[in-house]
Amino acid sequence: MEDTICAVSTAPGAGGIAVIRVSGPKAIAICNTIFVPRTTGKDLLSQRAYTLRYGSIRHGEELIDEVLVALFRTPHSFTGEDTVEITCHGSVYIQQQIMQLLIENGCRSALPGEYTQRAFMNGKMDLSQAEAVADLIASTSAGQHRLALNQMRGGFSHELKNLREQLLHITSLMELELDFSDHEELEFADRSELSMLATHIESVISRLANSFSVGNAIKNGIPVAIIGETNAGKSTLLNVLLNEEKAIVSDIHGTTRDVIEDTINIQGITFRFIDTAGIRETHDAIESIGIERTFQKLDQANIVLWMIDASDASLQIAQLSEKILPRSKGKQLILVFNKADLLTNHQFKPIDLPENVQSIFISAKKREHINELQDLLIQAAHIPSLSPNDVIITNIRHYEALTHALESIHRVQEGLSANLSGDFISQDLRECIFHLSDIVGEVTTDQVLGNIFERFCIGK
Amino acid sequence: MEDTICAVSTAPGAGGIAVIRVSGPKAIAICNTIFVPRTTGKDLLSQRAYTLRYGSIRHGEELIDEVLVALFRTPHSFTGEDTVEITCHGSVYIQQQIMQLLIENGCRSALPGEYTQRAFMNGKMDLSQAEAVADLIASTSAGQHRLALNQMRGGFSHELKNLREQLLHITSLMELELDFSDHEELEFADRSELSMLATHIESVISRLANSFSVGNAIKNGIPVAIIGETNAGKSTLLNVLLNEEKAIVSDIHGTTRDVIEDTINIQGITFRFIDTAGIRETHDAIESIGIERTFQKLDQANIVLWMIDASDASLQIAQLSEKILPRSKGKQLILVFNKADLLTNHQFKPIDLPENVQSIFISAKKREHINELQDLLIQAAHIPSLSPNDVIITNIRHYEALTHALESIHRVQEGLSANLSGDFISQDLRECIFHLSDIVGEVTTDQVLGNIFERFCIGK
Repeated sequence: MEDTICAVSTAPGAGGIAVIRVSGPKAIAICNTIFVPRTTGKDLLSQRAYTLRYGSIRHGEELIDEVLVALFRTPHSFTGEDTVEITCHGSVYIQQQIMQLLIENGCRSALPGEYTQRAFMNGKMDLSQAEAVADLIASTSAGQHRLALNQMRGGFSHELKNLREQLLHITSLMELELDFSDHEELEFADRSELSMLATHIESVISRLANSFSVGNAIKNGIPVAIIGETNAGKSTLLNVLLNEEKAIVSDIHGTTRDVIEDTINIQGITFRFIDTAGIRETHDAIESIGIERTFQKLDQANIVLWMIDASDASLQIAQLSEKILPRSKGKQLILVFNKADLLTNHQFKPIDLPENVQSIFISAKKREHINELQDLLIQAAHIPSLSPNDVIITNIRHYEALTHALESIHRVQEGLSANLSGDFISQDLRECIFHLSDIVGEVTTDQVLGNIFERFCIGK
Repeated sequence: MEDTICAVSTAPGAGGIAVIRVSGPKAIAICNTIFVPRTTGKDLLSQRAYTLRYGSIRHGEELIDEVLVALFRTPHSFTGEDTVEITCHGSVYIQQQIMQLLIENGCRSALPGEYTQRAFMNGKMDLSQAEAVADLIASTSAGQHRLALNQMRGGFSHELKNLREQLLHITSLMELELDFSDHEELEFADRSELSMLATHIESVISRLANSFSVGNAIKNGIPVAIIGETNAGKSTLLNVLLNEEKAIVSDIHGTTRDVIEDTINIQGITFRFIDTAGIRETHDAIESIGIERTFQKLDQANIVLWMIDASDASLQIAQLSEKILPRSKGKQLILVFNKADLLTNHQFKPIDLPENVQSIFISAKKREHINELQDLLIQAAHIPSLSPNDVIITNIRHYEALTHALESIHRVQEGLSANLSGDFISQDLRECIFHLSDIVGEVTTDQVLGNIFERFCIGK
């Protein structure tokens, strides 16, 4: 924390402009040695916080670039430290030159996430908020964005604070009894009241822990397998879904999406399409192995889109339902009858479908009924409509801590019903508090911090 | 120019932070409708120029991001217009959302180079300076960077201004004579003095025009062909040269180079390696065609590196010198004897080399004498050592205008020696001034402007 660190904080590569962030006790002094303001007068040392200054970065006599410098003073900055942000022209060469110059003048190249880590260390945010910064930057859908932003702004921390206050209240009552343990008859904490409070806390923790399945689906995308015969039109459908999305995205110039070809956002929800090979009846041993692999991939999916050539539906269903239906148990199965545009009225024979299986007729090629299919996907995703203040867990570290907290609170409940003495119960309550404190970073080890911040990008 | 424009000005993709720039008459008003400052008090409309404000971007009730807003007021901004720079978290999703919100509130997505074009239109810089902004952003070597920066800061414009002043001086004298053309004997402009001035101007223009060969080599890289037998070690050498460079670059975290695999910076000079297939003696017709193509590529090169397996040098030289030497005329030819580490003292027979052909023994595999080879390349590049104030032309548009100006000034000189009347000479002088004005954008058409700025990146 004694070091002054520097990094390019904007996206890597060439752009119109780039921002280099310098943070630490010597940030202003170091920048002052390489920055020459255009107008004479005050240097950076006496510049007011939250102001901008135009000038040039120089390496001795050599001009490196004309830049804009923004100044922040401790504690009113992202890291809580003195901070200078240098906005330079976005050439990679200039970014390197300025970085090199900063390092020559006493800065150290920042580690991934080091700015956010310093913000955490300086009490600008708790650990769950710091973790949300990385999630926010990585978010590519409305759902991910909303959850990360809510967590970063302390929605989750607030919920945890409430829980811990209630837990501390019980614990202090229990421990007050212990202080007077020679007076056996003394019971400050009314056992039935305690039991009600424990039940309430248990329900809040388990709601939070359970929200992880939704949070994880939103954060990592809902796995969808598209399965069907080779010519059923799977890749056409994928392209159509991708193109609809791209068309929306490309409306706005200047933003390039890192498109992972098989991840698609529909109405703010991310669907992760699992690549499967086409299926056909075969006696060839090697091909059979390939098809078996396709079926194995079904196991990873929450939703199965079974694509069927509508003109040939009965046969395909007869041949495949035996294989697909049993493996789709517990999943959302959608039968997609493709090539519906080629179908005459009487060609399609009604089929007996298991209950709860949705079906839809589309034409991927002609882009017909794609919207309806998207609606079915959204429905099958089972994402409850969230209000901005809903607290949803997206982080597996938090989920684990909550699970441990839940185990502790269950022991508290058992202890209370078994009428155990206060010192046992109090120990479990302390454990529960410990796990919740772990989430906000009050009891966290350096190694845990290392694991968390190394996932960040450089410059944040 | 009535529109308020917006664009992501930092490099495309996700980063720690991103900067969205809004410029135009409504920039502050539009940002004010979507920005909620964290502290109460003044809104953006009354915020002082060159200050920063922390707060959030909101779409109605929905929070989009927590941001930092920098404010600039006309004419003290890059474009000369009111400008707001929004620094947001670097997720692509957030960048899109803020862009969308700005557009919904009356901004237009900026065209490539539109900010710089506005800076030009508002008299913040002349056209040659504006063009240098794009070159500066694209620069990847010290040489490119220095030339672009000098041009952007007006080094070239200053030189042109001097030229035009001198030209206007002659022209006004010539035209004064025309005003008194009924007094035939009157000669305000001393012909021999004029002739001296024309000679001086001619020498300055031709120095500038000639500097294009150096400027172009620095800007676009010096084409180098590596040629030789298949097993001579060409790709090993290329990898060694690339790795040496990468090692330097990767010293600094947080900057990713857009490496074009066969472009290498050595001591600040860019070398562009031309891919050639290996050569071997063959009677196969198809293979001969491939080898002939390799020789054709020699024609594009300024420098030819002829790689020779040192242990087998005499034979290779005997077989190939007939083909390589004639095609290397006027080029810098460097014989690189590779695998020198495998050579015993007496194995190598001296060879008669044409004069001016450099030669060097290296081991690409063991990275021996690579530095010396780099020095030979630098020497062969014939880039004069430039002082920071040297004006070098890098832009083909400027080169063409200078060439036209040179033609005009030659006609002036001819006119003076042929003792032509002042009106002819004055017309050529005017033409010369016209071409020089074209460079700084005083007489430029919309179409020329369009061609220039569409080469820019979005957001600059």
